[in-house]
Amino acid sequence: MEAAEFRRRGKEMVDLIADYLENIEQRPVYPDVEPGYLRSLIPEEAPEEPDTYEDVVKDIERVIMPGVTHWHSPYFYAYFPTANSFPAMLADMLSGAIGCIGFSWAASPACTELETVMMDWLGKMLKLPEDFIAGTHGQGGGVIQGTASEATLVALLAARSRAVRMILASDPQRPETGITSKLVAYSSDQAHCSVERAGMIAGVRMKKIPTEQSDKYAVQGETLRRMIQEDKAAGLIPFYFCATLGTTPSCAFDHITELGPICNAEKIWMHIDAAYAGSSFICPEFRPLLNGIEFADSFNFNPHKWLLVNFDCSTMWVRKRSDLIGAFKMDPLYLKHDHQESGRYFYTDNSLFRSLKMWFVFRMYGLKGLQDYIRKHVELAKEFESLVRADQRFEISADVVLGLVCFRLKGSNEVNETLLKRINNGRKIHLVPCQLSGQFVLRFAVCARTTESRHIREAWRLITQLAEEVMQDVTKLKVRM
Amino acid sequence: MEAAEFRRRGKEMVDLIADYLENIEQRPVYPDVEPGYLRSLIPEEAPEEPDTYEDVVKDIERVIMPGVTHWHSPYFYAYFPTANSFPAMLADMLSGAIGCIGFSWAASPACTELETVMMDWLGKMLKLPEDFIAGTHGQGGGVIQGTASEATLVALLAARSRAVRMILASDPQRPETGITSKLVAYSSDQAHCSVERAGMIAGVRMKKIPTEQSDKYAVQGETLRRMIQEDKAAGLIPFYFCATLGTTPSCAFDHITELGPICNAEKIWMHIDAAYAGSSFICPEFRPLLNGIEFADSFNFNPHKWLLVNFDCSTMWVRKRSDLIGAFKMDPLYLKHDHQESGRYFYTDNSLFRSLKMWFVFRMYGLKGLQDYIRKHVELAKEFESLVRADQRFEISADVVLGLVCFRLKGSNEVNETLLKRINNGRKIHLVPCQLSGQFVLRFAVCARTTESRHIREAWRLITQLAEEVMQDVTKLKVRM
Ligand SMILES: Cc1ncc(COP(=O)(O)O)c(C=O)c1O
Ligand SMILES: Cc1ncc(COP(=O)(O)O)c(C=O)c1O
Repeated sequence: MEAAEFRRRGKEMVDLIADYLENIEQRPVYPDVEPGYLRSLIPEEAPEEPDTYEDVVKDIERVIMPGVTHWHSPYFYAYFPTANSFPAMLADMLSGAIGCIGFSWAASPACTELETVMMDWLGKMLKLPEDFIAGTHGQGGGVIQGTASEATLVALLAARSRAVRMILASDPQRPETGITSKLVAYSSDQAHCSVERAGMIAGVRMKKIPTEQSDKYAVQGETLRRMIQEDKAAGLIPFYFCATLGTTPSCAFDHITELGPICNAEKIWMHIDAAYAGSSFICPEFRPLLNGIEFADSFNFNPHKWLLVNFDCSTMWVRKRSDLIGAFKMDPLYLKHDHQESGRYFYTDNSLFRSLKMWFVFRMYGLKGLQDYIRKHVELAKEFESLVRADQRFEISADVVLGLVCFRLKGSNEVNETLLKRINNGRKIHLVPCQLSGQFVLRFAVCARTTESRHIREAWRLITQLAEEVMQDVTKLKVRM
Repeated sequence: MEAAEFRRRGKEMVDLIADYLENIEQRPVYPDVEPGYLRSLIPEEAPEEPDTYEDVVKDIERVIMPGVTHWHSPYFYAYFPTANSFPAMLADMLSGAIGCIGFSWAASPACTELETVMMDWLGKMLKLPEDFIAGTHGQGGGVIQGTASEATLVALLAARSRAVRMILASDPQRPETGITSKLVAYSSDQAHCSVERAGMIAGVRMKKIPTEQSDKYAVQGETLRRMIQEDKAAGLIPFYFCATLGTTPSCAFDHITELGPICNAEKIWMHIDAAYAGSSFICPEFRPLLNGIEFADSFNFNPHKWLLVNFDCSTMWVRKRSDLIGAFKMDPLYLKHDHQESGRYFYTDNSLFRSLKMWFVFRMYGLKGLQDYIRKHVELAKEFESLVRADQRFEISADVVLGLVCFRLKGSNEVNETLLKRINNGRKIHLVPCQLSGQFVLRFAVCARTTESRHIREAWRLITQLAEEVMQDVTKLKVRM
């Protein structure tokens, strides 16, 4: 296929995409296929001679769509959102065509430079302390990562490297091997599983800090302080704490104003994972949730979740760029260039031109448009919360702060599991569960860009209808027994 | 922007992209900007109110293009190629619109399933041993990673986890902490810097095996065997060897038929990094370079380099899926689903629908079209090699096996550095250097999809013209001194 044919096929694809997204709510949100469904629909091997483009396009509906979970359907309420907007898609098309790899300034200066400036734009929208803004000629700045999981790991590795440096500086005789096995990192028992995985990858102890429903699932300063003291007494070296703002199960917030000073006093690297919630901090009314950022060494959230920037775009800021560069620096000759020491730039990652989509989205929505978008999702969640609260059979399981509502039928875990199963088997709406204090809880996350009040009400109608059925079945069962 | 406007803007973008790629060779391949150039061209902050789309598009030429290194220009000969094809771009558009995240089967079954089947298609094109093909119901299979660096790390972590398991199985009394500090990994001194970085991340020793020009920069079995014996004698535990097929500096090949049995005998995980060269193994005449794969535990290469699949798409196969799953498994409730134990699927990564672009590319080119593409690049490299060999002032610095030619002026490193600087300052063609046995060497990699013989000849004309000038300047300087 050459450029001339691409002009035609590309335009057809634009229409196909627009059709897909305009009509997405007619599709069952969750697919009705069994594992292995796809293999039998296509050949065992790649063709020797080219297929026609028409055949390929026809197979999108025949092979792919039956197995797609439609994340951008307004009836999708599972996990957390993943962003999808037209400006971001346009930018991605351009990024794909330019197709430069941004592993150094010289590999494509525009790529590095736009990234640095977009991270400043976004940092300013969030009112980050000046230390985190590269353009102020401070020591910090922002860098795009693929995922929040990656950012958590990168922060942990930088922290590990800093800790080892500090220990060796204070005790130059000490052998370097063996230090790692003494290091201990902390995170909430509500933290995302990627935090635990980061500890496994880095080969350090990662201790989970217990949280309580009565504390709204937030890590308590007292608990962290006690664990640090116990570990130090046992000869271990606390070095990293990953705070979560907006946990995955229930969107709970650790109190970083309280935890930050503890970390600072103990020279523990505090990383903040706000993967989902971070986008909301561009609104003045939600910005207080980020208070305490001034104590953090690094901070990360995912515009690819809730800020209309398509995957992948996870934005990470560090207080000291040199902590990151130092932890990863590698400079073989084939990566050297004339502007090597241009200290404003630091990259740990190979990637496409990801900042283009931030630029397109920020400009095409404007800060106000982005704030409106966040506010609308929060309002929809509040609307759903009111519906739940107005129904005596249900209960709300955690504070509704942003776009996530955790709720359940008053009753056993089994009843709630059955309810969720029926909801998902209906394929009209899609939700996933979480566990809170031993209870099986349903998570209702406002996800799609196009979700409106009518979708929320329709979802609630379906949920209550299925709940009715489940409860009748339970009663029948009890009568029979 | 809603779907209706996207229909219009998307089509304009398709034309913009086609125009860009059709006329790319008129642009200077390497940009003429200084670090910081971009910041002054755009506002300090995101706009409050939306900009118009026209303004955004105008800024592509004003702000972005002056700072782009044009990787898809037929005059780009730096690094290794990064793939760019129209079918892949079409698939990426679709992938962006579907915008599902593939972290589990349930998160989008089609995504998981197409990936597994595409990895089998590609595995069969490479004639991988059956163990690596998921569809044969063996224990192995393929998974897409973002980059080769990631694959190297993932393999190293799986190896570390297997090694610790094996050690604990044979000595259950042994404390788990402390094992890692005894582990030792190996790779060639020609290996990509990401291999060393993987060792740093995993917190294990990574020893570089010295290679010699006389051995064509291939790791020798004798050297590996000796290092293993010495390390074992010193109480260390060898557990991982990363072989390279097609090294970054000179496209050298480790002899895995010789190295593999050593690793197997010592229970050392052998990973094969063929990031660039791997694509060529779809041609029967280059497939012998992969002989010895039967001894490997994992194997990886980048279709996003040389197989026309746009970034990111790094394909990795493992002999035993359970080694990967075991090393990374995390299963919080919100990721559980009914088909959890569907053993054919294993993912360690969050990602978009990356297999779509493999599917589009394999079908639109067919195996033959892909083979032709590889062969053409190798022929162009051979053509360049002949031009160099025919000129007495130059020498070839390493065997030309695929699309990379390493060459230099007979003379000092300084002369060659000066030559390269002038070549790149001319901005008509772009190359990067490497170091081979202390010599500064120029790397000429055939990269763009649209490179033709006339571009190669034009590049050579420029290089010889600049070489002439450099040598005259050197002579003048000598006369003056
Ligand atoms: C709090 C939190 N952290 C991290 C993640 C993982 O994000 P990613 O998929 O970008 O790694 C999530 C995902 O939902 C999350 O909720
Ligand atoms: C041999 C080798 N391995 C690994 C890499 C890194 O590849 P990636 O950018 O996909 O991590 C390269 C890049 O050129 C390479 O040549």
